[in-house]
Parts: sequence; C-alpha cells; structure tokens
Amino acid sequence: MAKNLELSLLLDFYGGLLTEKQRTVTELYYDEDLSLSEIAESHGISRQGVRDTVKRAEQQMLEMESALGLARRFRRITEGLRSISVAAQQLSESENPEVRRSALQIMGLAEELNLTESNA
Amino acid sequence: MAKNLELSLLLDFYGGLLTEKQRTVTELYYDEDLSLSEIAESHGISRQGVRDTVKRAEQQMLEMESALGLARRFRRITEGLRSISVAAQQLSESENPEVRRSALQIMGLAEELNLTESNA
Repeated sequence: MAKNLELSLLLDFYGGLLTEKQRTVTELYYDEDLSLSEIAESHGISRQGVRDTVKRAEQQMLEMESALGLARRFRRITEGLRSISVAAQQLSESENPEVRRSALQIMGLAEELNLTESNA
Repeated sequence: MAKNLELSLLLDFYGGLLTEKQRTVTELYYDEDLSLSEIAESHGISRQGVRDTVKRAEQQMLEMESALGLARRFRRITEGLRSISVAAQQLSESENPEVRRSALQIMGLAEELNLTESNA
C-alpha cells in the first residue's frame, strides 16, 4: 500500500469529519509519515487493524471529495494565486517605487492566501 | 423562521453530503427563494414536513462547517482576492502600458478565482 500525497491533502480538508481514532491514525500515517507497524506498536493494535482504519478513512475522504470537490476547488485557487504572484513579481522589478510597492503588496497577499489554504 | 444567507453559502459547500431530498428542498428554499408552503404544495408534502427537512439539513451543514471550517477558509480567500483586485486596480491606471497590462492580468485572475469560488 503506497502513500498517496493526494490523501494527505484530503485529510487536511476532511479530517474533521472522521472519527477521532481514524483521524489520529491517518494523521500519523500521512502527516507524521509513520509506518503501519510503527503506529500499531505505539497504539497497541495489530498492523492489520491500523491498515483497515487507514483504508476506511481514505475511502470516506475520497467519497467526500467526490461529493463536494472542495480540494479540487482549492487547488484551482492555489494555481491562480501562483499566476498572480508571477505577474506581480515582474511588476516588483519596476523602476517606479509606487508600482514596486503595490506589486509587493499583491505578492504578500497572494502568499498569505496560499498559506491560509494549507495551514488553516 | 428567517432565511439565513450564511446557510445558502454552506449549501454551496456541503450540499453534496446531504440526502437528495434534503438537497432538493433546501435548494428550493435558499437558492430559488421559495416559501415552505410553496415547496410543500409542489412536492405534495406538508408544510411542517418541508420545515423539518430544511431544519435538519441546516443543522447538519452547520455541524459540517463547525468540524471542517471550509466556508470560513473560502471567505478569507475571497476577502484577500478583493484586496488584490483593489491594489491591481490602482496599477491599471498607470501610464506605463506594461504595468497596465500586468495589472489587468492580475485583476482578471483575481476575478476568475472569485467566480471559481462561488460557481464551481
């Protein structure tokens, strides 16, 4: 069973709708990058039990994304913010100090929103 | 029972996790702005039945937002995009055609992302 980065993103979005046990185990697996065996050992459950929990959580999160598509919407916003940053970066090299200032302001806002997206 | 615009937003985010009946009735109530009685009549159910369905859907969506906070995250992004548009708008009045072009590009991207947000 290979770790899937997509699921790490879904966990960020939909983790709040998992049970506490599902969320804890799945976060250790994806966010802390522990192995199934390591999680099993530290929680006193079988490796198969951990695997079943992760699999079930993954399936639920994929179903939520299929129903809501919010990770997809966020990803589109992230790409757009990157394009805004690139355009503002060019302006930030202007010789006009007012243009530079506005460009830096835009870059700062775009960066802040990208952080909001992944860390909120 | 007053209609709450906040719930119309939550419906946009979380409607996909409601049952089909809940979603249909709640969309008629919030998005089409029909009254409970109008929905009851067109669906051959009691006004109280419609009201119960809407209330239950509202409660579930509020719980989802409480657990996930995705509408809140999107709202913050919308506000940031508005600030980016304002800064770009100023730049779009520049006498330098390259600055104007980049500013218009940024405004277009920010607007597109705001559309993505509400219509995806």
